[in-house]
Amino acid sequence: MFFASDNTGPVHPRIMDALLQANEGYAMPYGDDGLMVQATKEVRRVFEAPDAAVYLVATGTAANSLILATLSQPWQTVFCSPQAHIHEDECNAPEFFSGGAKLTLVGGSDAKIDPDLLCKAIKTEESRGVHGPQRGPVSITQATERGTVYSLKEIKAVTDVAHQFGLPTHLDGARFANALSALGCTPAEMSWKAGIDAISFGATKNGCMGVEAVVFFDPKHAWEFELRRKRGAHLFSKNRYLAAQIVAYLRDDLWLENARAANAAAARLTQGLKQTPGVSFPFEPQANILFADFPRAAHQRLHEAGAQYYIWKGALEGRDPDEMLSARLVCDWSASMGSIDQFLELVKPR
Amino acid sequence: MFFASDNTGPVHPRIMDALLQANEGYAMPYGDDGLMVQATKEVRRVFEAPDAAVYLVATGTAANSLILATLSQPWQTVFCSPQAHIHEDECNAPEFFSGGAKLTLVGGSDAKIDPDLLCKAIKTEESRGVHGPQRGPVSITQATERGTVYSLKEIKAVTDVAHQFGLPTHLDGARFANALSALGCTPAEMSWKAGIDAISFGATKNGCMGVEAVVFFDPKHAWEFELRRKRGAHLFSKNRYLAAQIVAYLRDDLWLENARAANAAAARLTQGLKQTPGVSFPFEPQANILFADFPRAAHQRLHEAGAQYYIWKGALEGRDPDEMLSARLVCDWSASMGSIDQFLELVKPR
Amino acid sequence: MFFASDNTGPVHPRIMDALLQANEGYAMPYGDDGLMVQATKEVRRVFEAPDAAVYLVATGTAANSLILATLSQPWQTVFCSPQAHIHEDECNAPEFFSGGAKLTLVGGSDAKIDPDLLCKAIKTEESRGVHGPQRGPVSITQATERGTVYSLKEIKAVTDVAHQFGLPTHLDGARFANALSALGCTPAEMSWKAGIDAISFGATKNGCMGVEAVVFFDPKHAWEFELRRKRGAHLFSKNRYLAAQIVAYLRDDLWLENARAANAAAARLTQGLKQTPGVSFPFEPQANILFADFPRAAHQRLHEAGAQYYIWKGALEGRDPDEMLSARLVCDWSASMGSIDQFLELVKPR
Amino acid sequence: MFFASDNTGPVHPRIMDALLQANEGYAMPYGDDGLMVQATKEVRRVFEAPDAAVYLVATGTAANSLILATLSQPWQTVFCSPQAHIHEDECNAPEFFSGGAKLTLVGGSDAKIDPDLLCKAIKTEESRGVHGPQRGPVSITQATERGTVYSLKEIKAVTDVAHQFGLPTHLDGARFANALSALGCTPAEMSWKAGIDAISFGATKNGCMGVEAVVFFDPKHAWEFELRRKRGAHLFSKNRYLAAQIVAYLRDDLWLENARAANAAAARLTQGLKQTPGVSFPFEPQANILFADFPRAAHQRLHEAGAQYYIWKGALEGRDPDEMLSARLVCDWSASMGSIDQFLELVKPR
Repeated sequence: MFFASDNTGPVHPRIMDALLQANEGYAMPYGDDGLMVQATKEVRRVFEAPDAAVYLVATGTAANSLILATLSQPWQTVFCSPQAHIHEDECNAPEFFSGGAKLTLVGGSDAKIDPDLLCKAIKTEESRGVHGPQRGPVSITQATERGTVYSLKEIKAVTDVAHQFGLPTHLDGARFANALSALGCTPAEMSWKAGIDAISFGATKNGCMGVEAVVFFDPKHAWEFELRRKRGAHLFSKNRYLAAQIVAYLRDDLWLENARAANAAAARLTQGLKQTPGVSFPFEPQANILFADFPRAAHQRLHEAGAQYYIWKGALEGRDPDEMLSARLVCDWSASMGSIDQFLELVKPR
Repeated sequence: MFFASDNTGPVHPRIMDALLQANEGYAMPYGDDGLMVQATKEVRRVFEAPDAAVYLVATGTAANSLILATLSQPWQTVFCSPQAHIHEDECNAPEFFSGGAKLTLVGGSDAKIDPDLLCKAIKTEESRGVHGPQRGPVSITQATERGTVYSLKEIKAVTDVAHQFGLPTHLDGARFANALSALGCTPAEMSWKAGIDAISFGATKNGCMGVEAVVFFDPKHAWEFELRRKRGAHLFSKNRYLAAQIVAYLRDDLWLENARAANAAAARLTQGLKQTPGVSFPFEPQANILFADFPRAAHQRLHEAGAQYYIWKGALEGRDPDEMLSARLVCDWSASMGSIDQFLELVKPR
Repeated sequence: MFFASDNTGPVHPRIMDALLQANEGYAMPYGDDGLMVQATKEVRRVFEAPDAAVYLVATGTAANSLILATLSQPWQTVFCSPQAHIHEDECNAPEFFSGGAKLTLVGGSDAKIDPDLLCKAIKTEESRGVHGPQRGPVSITQATERGTVYSLKEIKAVTDVAHQFGLPTHLDGARFANALSALGCTPAEMSWKAGIDAISFGATKNGCMGVEAVVFFDPKHAWEFELRRKRGAHLFSKNRYLAAQIVAYLRDDLWLENARAANAAAARLTQGLKQTPGVSFPFEPQANILFADFPRAAHQRLHEAGAQYYIWKGALEGRDPDEMLSARLVCDWSASMGSIDQFLELVKPR
Repeated sequence: MFFASDNTGPVHPRIMDALLQANEGYAMPYGDDGLMVQATKEVRRVFEAPDAAVYLVATGTAANSLILATLSQPWQTVFCSPQAHIHEDECNAPEFFSGGAKLTLVGGSDAKIDPDLLCKAIKTEESRGVHGPQRGPVSITQATERGTVYSLKEIKAVTDVAHQFGLPTHLDGARFANALSALGCTPAEMSWKAGIDAISFGATKNGCMGVEAVVFFDPKHAWEFELRRKRGAHLFSKNRYLAAQIVAYLRDDLWLENARAANAAAARLTQGLKQTPGVSFPFEPQANILFADFPRAAHQRLHEAGAQYYIWKGALEGRDPDEMLSARLVCDWSASMGSIDQFLELVKPR
């Protein structure tokens, strides 16, 4: 019963195989290796973006921060959701890499940015000339940190507002594959065709060991990004082992396979919880994360049985057993259906 | 009819005299001058703080940003009001000087921080260990940017929350004198006795040419501040001309005299507007700034007669003449009663 | 006998008069005042540069750091002399404002950059692709920190190397007027005609209270500079008092008059010291700073008589009386000929 | 004939095995995994430092920059060799992570810091009070970037000077194992017993895939480092795969075995080159990097035969065939003796 995160499970065997196969002979360092050529090709193919600039880093925070720093100026503000990873979970990394840019929080339902509120927020900035922060990029998270998924139309509505003001757009795709699988569209449709200028294309949470692709659909930012990546200490000498992961991840659709498995596990969990009396959902689960409210007593049983997951802003001790606490449950590609059934059994009211 | 700001009027003649008198002979540079000794003494006397570390800079943004950078770490967040000058009007200077710290906006009525919301906001940060921003200083503005004034009890309620979590407190006192005059208390009561650890003690808006005192009630930050000031290019070679202003400002209570004059002018304006049909106040005016809503037609008349003030988030053109627009009206020490009466005459409905 | 610095003397009376005259009525803040229009006009006239972007700040370090930050990227290196003020005396302000750019020190005689060494240094950088710092602006100081002056030909030789590599050039003109006076050329000849792209045009050391003009001969940097100035807390609300100084400084050639007086005083001091047995000069004095080596015993006499100046990397106590120590002697516009004669009398061997 | 770098060869099979074994079941993320407990234990054991704070990052630049940022303040300067990796090859990463600290270059022979020059350099800084950069940490590289190795006495001489001024010391140990193997001492002797406060303990170049340990012998910096690592985007979610490498690297002395192999290969190459007429050595090779000067014609032969190595500041085309060019030759654990013999054969004069 491991639902703490999609970064706690094992690396997919095909990724491990790819690493073993990459470990032959010599390869030039810092991205001048043959596998990087293949990785770039695969990413461009998958995104139908033959001119895209493609780079690899090892953490999602690196991808997000380096992209936002490249797209912004230190006197600007980045528009994002209050639930964005870049705001809540990166310990000021975007502020650090950008040299002190600000984040302006834009509300909306289901942890998504509302286009009208975005428009209002953008208009508010720069009403004070040189005095206030200047308008910077708009960043969305897909799937969101609350397990919801923007429809293509919703993405387009956000990017339309951004582009109307000449602002670049970023998509934090730590769970890109899960969202894609939920929508059943193409990577191009969920990115540049919907108005996204750059993405953090996550792979670590979806079966890789530690690799994220940075994709700029317009390659004009390429050289600046390379300098920022090196200066940020995110250029790997043995880059081939990052490239090998991405190649194996994209070839033969392993990435989609893994995302489908994770989403299916989450769907089964959701289905079961929906049939359990006393369980409610603060957000409608759409990908591989879900939030479910149920009584403290059920949490207690799960906890004692070794279930691993985070309780969202709460604690188990010293509370009314009937009190509702919110569980954050994440499934990865390796989630076992047996553990889901065990979980569902334990959550049932006694 | 000059109500655009309290930085548009002339410097008080006694400040100019002090500058002329300071202009005799030689003085060592960078704060090693005799006038700086006097300035430090005056500030300590006025604040009943014999150990305070006192520094001079030329802009309010410099005072705020350098203090907050000294009191914080780059991975922390500063708690402040959404209406704070440090958030709205400093073009990311606090983020820049702090090396990328974040600002967390804490709501409340009348542009003041609500202590309960502050407590909640502080608790929310650091619920994510190393992942989220860490808790940093709490900063309030007195008088606020909306012309309201924290009571001593209100300040204490905010600083109590901050200190309960071990967080330092800062007061942006660009209009310290106006607030003090409104409350009728002592500087010590409105600062360290109310739990404030450091203040930006404004003088520029209240009759000086360009000088703000930085006061740390605990001098342990002194050397770090000196290095930050120099590195920020805010150490003046001819510091004596900053010191001369502060000495003249504090001696013989010129600062209180100026603040009283500015507040009295604002009070007269408020009084007159209250008696004018169709005028309402989004905030209760307490110091020398006031916001008043009245019909577009009255704005038009004032505008044509040359009245200078900012319209708060609005524009005159192409609107219904009955539509209410908000005027931001600021009085400084030199505000003329005649111009106030003229203003009141023009705002009256025809 | 005040030779400690050119920032220890009084402000010139005509500057004080200008401040008094500027203190009439109301003026819009933050540079939107009528005096700023005049100041810009005067600077453009003096430099024969009708399109130049002109800004005012209050310290030389602000001018230097903000210009270099505007001309560079954080992953670049600025080429300068090991004796440059930006390297030795700004407590890492250029590194701070640029977001972490490096300074590469380029040698040469008389505290000037040698063009051949510059060429070599530039070639060395960027020989390592993304790994090393990238090439950034070239910055020279005129007059240098050692009291020497680049000839026009020498400036051109340096800027030619810079431009050959596409690098922008900056001139730190904290003592621009003194150098100009020494060369007897026009401001245009000593700046853009010699290949300088931006200058810190000093006025504080030459009789003003605290103002430096930033001049970009190509105005494309204007808006970015304005944002950097505000974010650096160097935008003055009561800008008119900066503008008034520059206008009075440039009108009727006060600036040249002051520089000539300072240089003449330094020349008299140099002349006298040259005729004094046992005095030698590590650098040939050309403007208003001079370095002179003479025995400890003479320093002792001067010290006891109250002469103020810095001993360059040395100390008076516990040394052989015959030991040579270097005096750094600076004259400003107000240097009295009487004090120079008194100094010369005391330095004479007994 | 692969001598371009020690990051071009394959990962050692025992490291790959460890990664495969680590890929079992679930592990908590961000360093809360069981392998990290083992890794910390192994590092402490190897260094005889039971209280040391131990962290893992994936690149040497991350280790260096994060340590130096933790040990310094933005207004300080780091003392290092002009040949230091932190100066030459990190694209201003130390300046970035430290928030704008400076690097002061201290000369010495064989790419080592000379203790007397260090003492002089430290004394020079802070002779200007608040104006100049303040003294910061001293950083040495062992083995150096030129293939030389500090003796224990030489390290102690440098750290003694640093500690005499109260400055902390850092050792960039990207090739720690190679230096250790050359000296035949213990890790403790080459680090904290010689006065080193913190080390970047390299593993990537010596057979790992991508992992460097950060070791603070005094754990007081631990929490700050953790925040800096997260903010720098260098905290890995799947940390177990970093930890697995370090555990396998240190257990059963794999790290020493690899270093001995690399050094032996370099020694054989050196030996052969010493017996080759016309070959000279700008530095005496001591570890696994060597620099050798030989005629252009020999470079040409090697090049045509596919030998991979960098020519140090030179190019092959259009030069006198007798002209001497310097080869930088690096051996890793996998260097084949056959390729060395082939290289030696080709370099022989014809």
